[in-house]
Amino acid sequence: MPTDLPNERPLRAPGTMELDPSGDGIALDETRRLIASNKVEGTAVYDRKGESLGTIYNFMVDKVSGQVAYAVVAFGGFLGLGESYHPLPWKALTYDLRLGGYVVDIDADTLAGAPRHGPDEDPFAEPGYGERLDDYYGGRKPAI
Amino acid sequence: MPTDLPNERPLRAPGTMELDPSGDGIALDETRRLIASNKVEGTAVYDRKGESLGTIYNFMVDKVSGQVAYAVVAFGGFLGLGESYHPLPWKALTYDLRLGGYVVDIDADTLAGAPRHGPDEDPFAEPGYGERLDDYYGGRKPAI
Repeated sequence: MPTDLPNERPLRAPGTMELDPSGDGIALDETRRLIASNKVEGTAVYDRKGESLGTIYNFMVDKVSGQVAYAVVAFGGFLGLGESYHPLPWKALTYDLRLGGYVVDIDADTLAGAPRHGPDEDPFAEPGYGERLDDYYGGRKPAI
Repeated sequence: MPTDLPNERPLRAPGTMELDPSGDGIALDETRRLIASNKVEGTAVYDRKGESLGTIYNFMVDKVSGQVAYAVVAFGGFLGLGESYHPLPWKALTYDLRLGGYVVDIDADTLAGAPRHGPDEDPFAEPGYGERLDDYYGGRKPAI
């Protein structure tokens, strides 16, 4: 049952990249709010039904503000497309303690039609790619 | 010479983790503001005099806000201390295009006495470690 303790929060807070080794997911103090970049990379990613989509390949950080904008998820053969990389809005990922990975709160049709690239491509080098992503995901534009 | 173009900024903007492959460092568009997490890891780090300190091992991200708080720098034998890991405030790092790495805007004495840990330690698991870092670096507390 929730209390009024200031640092208590739900097991799966929307918009978090929670990876809490203690396993309880609540009453995390300020220190436990921090996660190492190389622990996020490689973490499993699931759809809303708990089906495996792939793993987090890396994530894109705004150099000026230091804000994480997108997580690039490597989809292994999702929808029969072969290996592909999908930059997803960071705020659409929530860590699920039971699954031990991130759940993507985006429906399957939206994911299937989303911007993606191959393993040797760097679409973020293209002018306007960030805007294209933001347009595609609508209200999920990152707060940068 | 500076102009009034909205996306132009100095070669070395304070508080940035700039890593600009184009090499010009100015007139970066919104897309070029983003950098991949795994490209930050391993980048060289220098002191104010341009002397090598080590490399960026990883960086700590606030799970709730998605804000980068600290860069953990692996110091290879700095000050005769052997390999050690120093979490530095993210805002103290500036990318230097000439050096091809980040410059730490912290004086040598402050660095020498700063909180650090060994390769097998995880100080961020200790309650209050973030507060200890913030206290040590004073006004450089991250905006999270």
